Amino acid sequence: MTHITLAEAFNQTTYPVAGHGKRNVQVLLDALQDIDGALDSDMYGSGQVMEDFQQQMASYLGKESAVFFPSGTMAQQIALRIWCDRLELKRVAYHPLCHLEIHEKDGLKELHHIEPILLADKDRLIQLDDVLNMQEDIACLLLELPQREIGGQLPDYGDLEAISTYCREKGIKLHLDGARLFEILPYYQKSAAEICALFDSVYVSFYKGIGGIAGAVLAGDSDFTEASKVWKRRHGGDLISLYPYIISSKHYFSERIGKMAQYYEEAKELAGFYNQCQGVVTQPVEPVSNMFHVHVELPRAQLESILIAIYEATGVGLTGYVREASETTSCYELSIGDRYVNVPKEPLREAFRMLDAQMKEAVQG
Amino acid sequence: MTHITLAEAFNQTTYPVAGHGKRNVQVLLDALQDIDGALDSDMYGSGQVMEDFQQQMASYLGKESAVFFPSGTMAQQIALRIWCDRLELKRVAYHPLCHLEIHEKDGLKELHHIEPILLADKDRLIQLDDVLNMQEDIACLLLELPQREIGGQLPDYGDLEAISTYCREKGIKLHLDGARLFEILPYYQKSAAEICALFDSVYVSFYKGIGGIAGAVLAGDSDFTEASKVWKRRHGGDLISLYPYIISSKHYFSERIGKMAQYYEEAKELAGFYNQCQGVVTQPVEPVSNMFHVHVELPRAQLESILIAIYEATGVGLTGYVREASETTSCYELSIGDRYVNVPKEPLREAFRMLDAQMKEAVQG
Repeated sequence: MTHITLAEAFNQTTYPVAGHGKRNVQVLLDALQDIDGALDSDMYGSGQVMEDFQQQMASYLGKESAVFFPSGTMAQQIALRIWCDRLELKRVAYHPLCHLEIHEKDGLKELHHIEPILLADKDRLIQLDDVLNMQEDIACLLLELPQREIGGQLPDYGDLEAISTYCREKGIKLHLDGARLFEILPYYQKSAAEICALFDSVYVSFYKGIGGIAGAVLAGDSDFTEASKVWKRRHGGDLISLYPYIISSKHYFSERIGKMAQYYEEAKELAGFYNQCQGVVTQPVEPVSNMFHVHVELPRAQLESILIAIYEATGVGLTGYVREASETTSCYELSIGDRYVNVPKEPLREAFRMLDAQMKEAVQG
Repeated sequence: MTHITLAEAFNQTTYPVAGHGKRNVQVLLDALQDIDGALDSDMYGSGQVMEDFQQQMASYLGKESAVFFPSGTMAQQIALRIWCDRLELKRVAYHPLCHLEIHEKDGLKELHHIEPILLADKDRLIQLDDVLNMQEDIACLLLELPQREIGGQLPDYGDLEAISTYCREKGIKLHLDGARLFEILPYYQKSAAEICALFDSVYVSFYKGIGGIAGAVLAGDSDFTEASKVWKRRHGGDLISLYPYIISSKHYFSERIGKMAQYYEEAKELAGFYNQCQGVVTQPVEPVSNMFHVHVELPRAQLESILIAIYEATGVGLTGYVREASETTSCYELSIGDRYVNVPKEPLREAFRMLDAQMKEAVQG
């Protein structure tokens, strides 16, 4: 019996299954490999390196204008603030597990004094009915596609269009939390611009499916993006130089935007392996992007021991962490990236045979 | 007569006089040269690459703890907010040309609803009397050392100690805008820690005298820095990866912290050359850091023509821009860095002989 942790065991595996690779300095070195050192830095929001990429993203997203931000946290608070100011109404609506509600230390409330209405239950998507039945006026509705905290779920495209139409009729601004927008295009079979056309403003991230270092883009009409630059300065995000993030975002966007369909197919395959195991189910059962959650009917410590044994026997690393879901169940999140294609199928199948066998034993024992 | 701009002419000179060099991607490539690609990224404010540098800076500044920030704008608003919250008083005091007052689109007011009292006149330093004579209670006094917008001036060290003592007695928190703190150590003949001991909180920057890419550190006691991390998350500054800025800050800190005395001596020499020219005076007349302002008794367009002629004749580049100060006068800012030592003295003297001659002709003409 070793005292190795799950993270340590995972780091020693030959075939880690999820993600693009380690988040280390090599990610930056690779992005810089073909860059001429004489390329000028951006300077406080201007400069060719920034303007070119912003233009590229505006075109890709089908919006008039786009602005590069150091983080999505900053970009999204600012988007909501602009819409609230424009409608003179400091109230918005979003999902109870929205990033702004659970991961930003209440920045939206503490810095912008904006009140959020929580739509839908924690364990399901926002539906048209939730929007229709809102009791209070709001300036902006934020939709996250896919809804990450429930495994990356998506509404039917028709429902999305219906929500968009209703918001337009009512004068409610619609904002897209598109942290994983690139990852859902294969499922919807739509271009980013087609989806973004349903929204007044859009945020996308460059370190999820794209696998860059950090950074985000906020897109919309030019009035909106110009206002966002003022707020970016106020937030302290208008750095003298953002080029390390811009260059890497551009590099990995170019490298990976064409692979989203592959990641999506691989996520479905991997989820299928999980769902064949006793006491294991993925959320969603069939992924609609490159991501899903794994729910296991075992306490965390017990699952960790099983996983470590699987890693040591097969060299396959399924996850680097497990979260306690309840006293008797546990879960973790997976996002498929460049690594999956390099995992040989035989040890992968062996890992799942072991997982199934160990689960059966654990549940019966 | 060419139609070249001053910036173009400056960029073509063989011997630019001020600064460290061009702000281009080479600055990042150089900082990464000896970095192992296997070095792990920081992750949302933790990780060895970040914690080591924060510890190094806390020690250097003589404070209990230090936190890396993407920008000084973010760090300083947060410092003032923490002190205001702690004293339950949303009022601070600073110089009329404080960075927060003129360069941040009123972030302090718009995001934090903090009211600033403007101490002293625009064209002089804050004195002890200004502090003694304040009519209203404040939570925090911000002092910028050196006061950049008036050429980088410094109070006598005794005055600084007296202000610090008074603030401690009155329960007023004292915050140091130390964007150029490293640059003033040779003049005061004090360590950074000795100066910082007069202040409750300190911000330093890594892309002025240090010449990094971007980034700042906020230092103080641990209660203060822990609170600053919460606000950093709220501002959207707690990026998943800040290592491009941390690595370059550490690299250039190590490379240049020992050169501040050299830059200071060179600034005094260069200011001396300027002050020998007719109708030209530096502010301060004798620099107290690596920076000063140049004030010229000529309209901007006329000075630009003279400078372009000097650059073309001598290969020496004195400045890349000139600002209009009034209809008949102009000015610009200079900060001495690595470049100065590489400028041969003879063409430099020739440039100033030409400037003096041209100024005499222009003033008489």
